[in-house]
Amino acid sequence: MTQAEQISAVDAEETGRSKIWAHSGDSHLMEPDDIWTSRLPKRLSDRAPRAERGEKYELVFIDGQQISRQLNDFMDAMRPPGVRDVQIRLQDLDQEGVWCQLSFPSMGFWTVNINDRELARACARAWNEWAMEDFMAQQDRIFAPAIVPLVDVDDAVAELESAAAQGFQAIFLPTSMPPEREWGFDMWEPLWAAADAANMVLAYHIGTGRENVVYRGPGGAVVNYMETTYPGMRVVTHLVASGALDRHPNLKVLIAEGGAGWVPALGDRMDEAYRQHGMFVRPRLSRLPSEIVRQQVYASFQHDISAVQIIEDTHYNNVMWGDDYPHLEGTYGHTQQTLHQLFDEVDPRIADRVLRGTFEELFNVPRMSDEMRNGR
Amino acid sequence: MTQAEQISAVDAEETGRSKIWAHSGDSHLMEPDDIWTSRLPKRLSDRAPRAERGEKYELVFIDGQQISRQLNDFMDAMRPPGVRDVQIRLQDLDQEGVWCQLSFPSMGFWTVNINDRELARACARAWNEWAMEDFMAQQDRIFAPAIVPLVDVDDAVAELESAAAQGFQAIFLPTSMPPEREWGFDMWEPLWAAADAANMVLAYHIGTGRENVVYRGPGGAVVNYMETTYPGMRVVTHLVASGALDRHPNLKVLIAEGGAGWVPALGDRMDEAYRQHGMFVRPRLSRLPSEIVRQQVYASFQHDISAVQIIEDTHYNNVMWGDDYPHLEGTYGHTQQTLHQLFDEVDPRIADRVLRGTFEELFNVPRMSDEMRNGR
Repeated sequence: MTQAEQISAVDAEETGRSKIWAHSGDSHLMEPDDIWTSRLPKRLSDRAPRAERGEKYELVFIDGQQISRQLNDFMDAMRPPGVRDVQIRLQDLDQEGVWCQLSFPSMGFWTVNINDRELARACARAWNEWAMEDFMAQQDRIFAPAIVPLVDVDDAVAELESAAAQGFQAIFLPTSMPPEREWGFDMWEPLWAAADAANMVLAYHIGTGRENVVYRGPGGAVVNYMETTYPGMRVVTHLVASGALDRHPNLKVLIAEGGAGWVPALGDRMDEAYRQHGMFVRPRLSRLPSEIVRQQVYASFQHDISAVQIIEDTHYNNVMWGDDYPHLEGTYGHTQQTLHQLFDEVDPRIADRVLRGTFEELFNVPRMSDEMRNGR
Repeated sequence: MTQAEQISAVDAEETGRSKIWAHSGDSHLMEPDDIWTSRLPKRLSDRAPRAERGEKYELVFIDGQQISRQLNDFMDAMRPPGVRDVQIRLQDLDQEGVWCQLSFPSMGFWTVNINDRELARACARAWNEWAMEDFMAQQDRIFAPAIVPLVDVDDAVAELESAAAQGFQAIFLPTSMPPEREWGFDMWEPLWAAADAANMVLAYHIGTGRENVVYRGPGGAVVNYMETTYPGMRVVTHLVASGALDRHPNLKVLIAEGGAGWVPALGDRMDEAYRQHGMFVRPRLSRLPSEIVRQQVYASFQHDISAVQIIEDTHYNNVMWGDDYPHLEGTYGHTQQTLHQLFDEVDPRIADRVLRGTFEELFNVPRMSDEMRNGR
C-alpha cells in the first residue's frame, strides 16, 4: 500500500464511508517572501510585487504603487503550514483526498499588473523557475501553470514556449484586462497559436488583473465575491465571440474558481445574440458559440451543488472540481464532507467526470490507482 | 369560440401541432413621438428623452446630452406595425400565442438617466398616464410596470403608491446604477417597504441605466449583448446580500430578458461567500442567499434551452418565458416554433410553470381558457 492508500483505508474505517479522491483544478502555491529578491537583480527586485503588513490590512505594492489591500485576518486564514512546505502539503493532500492540484500563484498573480516590460519578463521567469525547482521537480502531484509576461505578446509567447519545454502544461492568465487589451483582440493571436502548438491549457483564474474590493456597502463581502465571477464569464465571451477559440479548435480554456453552473446559460445567451443579431455579428464563426463553449471551455467550482446538477440535463460536460487550497473559500479541512455531500447521490459517471475526468482530459497526471478511483 | 381560440384551431390544423399559449414576462410598449411634448409643459418637454435619426445612427438625447447611439437598421428591425397600435398588437399576440404581456417601456427606459428631480417626476408620471390611457384602459392582456422617478426615493414611493392605486402591478427598475446608488444601499428601503405594502413586483429589465455599447472590437455584437446580462446578476446580488429581500420576504423581483439558467449558480456562489467568508459578512441573513433567490427572484428568457433544462435538477422554479416583443432578440414571427422546440419534450408541469405559472404567481391576469392552457 502507498501512504495515500493507507490513509484512505484508515479514513474509510473511521468514518464508515469510502474516501473520495479527486483532482483539483484550482489550488495555489504560496511564494516565499524572498522569491524576487533572491532571483532578480536589486534594481528589478525593488520594483517586484511586495506585501507589507500593516496594523489591520496587508498591502500589496508593485513599483511603489499600492494595488491591493486585504484584511490581515483574511490573509492569515488562508495560510496553513502546508502552503509553504511541499512535504507537509502532500500530507494535507492525502488527508483531504486530493490526488493532483493545478496550483496557481498567490503573490505571483500581481505580476500581471506590471507595466514595465523588462520587469514583467523577469518576474514571470523567476516565478516559473521557483515553481519548477521548489515544487514540480520535487514531486509530480502538484504542478503550476506558468506565468507569462503580458506587456508584449512576443514575450508571452517566448515564456510559454520555454515553459512548455520544461514540462509546464498550462499558462496562467488573468480574467480582468484593460479595455484596450481585452482577450478578444487580434493582438493575442500569436499567444493562442503558440499555446495551441505546445498543447498548453489557458488557465484563467478569477479575481486577477484588478483590485477585488470594488464595492463598499451592505453585503460587501458577498457582493465583492460575486464581482470576481463576472470577469470569468467575460473572458469566455471574448474568446468565443472574437473567433479566437474557433480558429484554434484544440485550444482548451479553464476558468478556475468561478463556479460552473452558469456556463450553459452563457452559451445559450451568446447563441441568442449570434442568431438574433446575426446581421451585426463579426466575425462569423464556424460553430455556434454554445458548441465552442462545450468543446473548449472548462470551469471549476468548490461547493456549488448546481455545478453538478446541471450536467445531466444541459449536457455541459466540462465541469471540474477544485479545492482552492489553501484559501478560505476552498474545502481544506472539510474536503471529504463536501465531496460526499456533492457526489454521494450522483450518477457515478458524472462524479468520475467532475472529480477526475475533466482534469485528466486537460493534463497528464500520475496514475491514480483503481482502488482510489473507485473509492475503495 | 373567441378570436384567439379560432386562430388556435386554424394554426393547429395548418401545422398539425397544437398551439402553445404563454404569458410573456418581457415585452415592450413603444411610445408615440409626442409622449412628452403632448403631456409636459414646454420647459420640461424640451429636456425629456428624445430620439434623433441621423444618417446611420439613431441618437438619444436627454436635456441636450447624447446618451445612446444605435444603428438605424437595428432600431428599424424592432418596430413592427403592432408596436404602435393596440388592436394590431392584440392580433400579433393571438397569432404568436401570447396571452398576456408585461410590457416595459422603450424610450421610457431613458427616464432613469434623468438627474433633475422635477423632470424625472414629470416624465415618469406622463409615461404612466400614457400607458394607462392608451394601453391598459383599452384591454387587459397587455400591462406595463410603472416608471418611478429615482432622483429622490420619496418621489419613487409616491409614484409607486399612485400607480398601485390605478392598477399597476409592478414598477420598472434599471439594472445599472451609479456606484453610490447601488440597490443594496439603505437609501432604497422606503421603496422596498412601499412595494411590499402595495404588492408591487420589482421588475428589473436588463440593458437599462447605462449606455449598452461598452466594447468595440472583434465579436462586439455578442460581447455587448453579454455585457447587458451581468448587471442583472449584480442586481440580484445586491438585493440579496444587503438584506433588502430578507427584510421583505413577500417582495418579488423579476430580472427580465437576461436568461434564467444562471440563477442557481449565482445562488450557490453567494452561499459559498456567505458561509466561507462568514466572519466578514454584514448583514447576517435569516436565510441562505440561495433560499432567498429561490423564494423571491424570478428571471425571464426567450430562447435559452438551458433555462428550462436546469429546473428539474436544481429545483429553481421561478423561470419565466418572455417574447421580448417587438425586439430583434425576441421571438416575434417564430414564437410557436421556439415554444415547440423548448417545450415539446419537457415534463408538462415544468412547461406549465415556465409558460404560465410563474407569471400568474406574480400578476393578476385575465383567465386563459383550459383549452388554450392545455394546447387544444
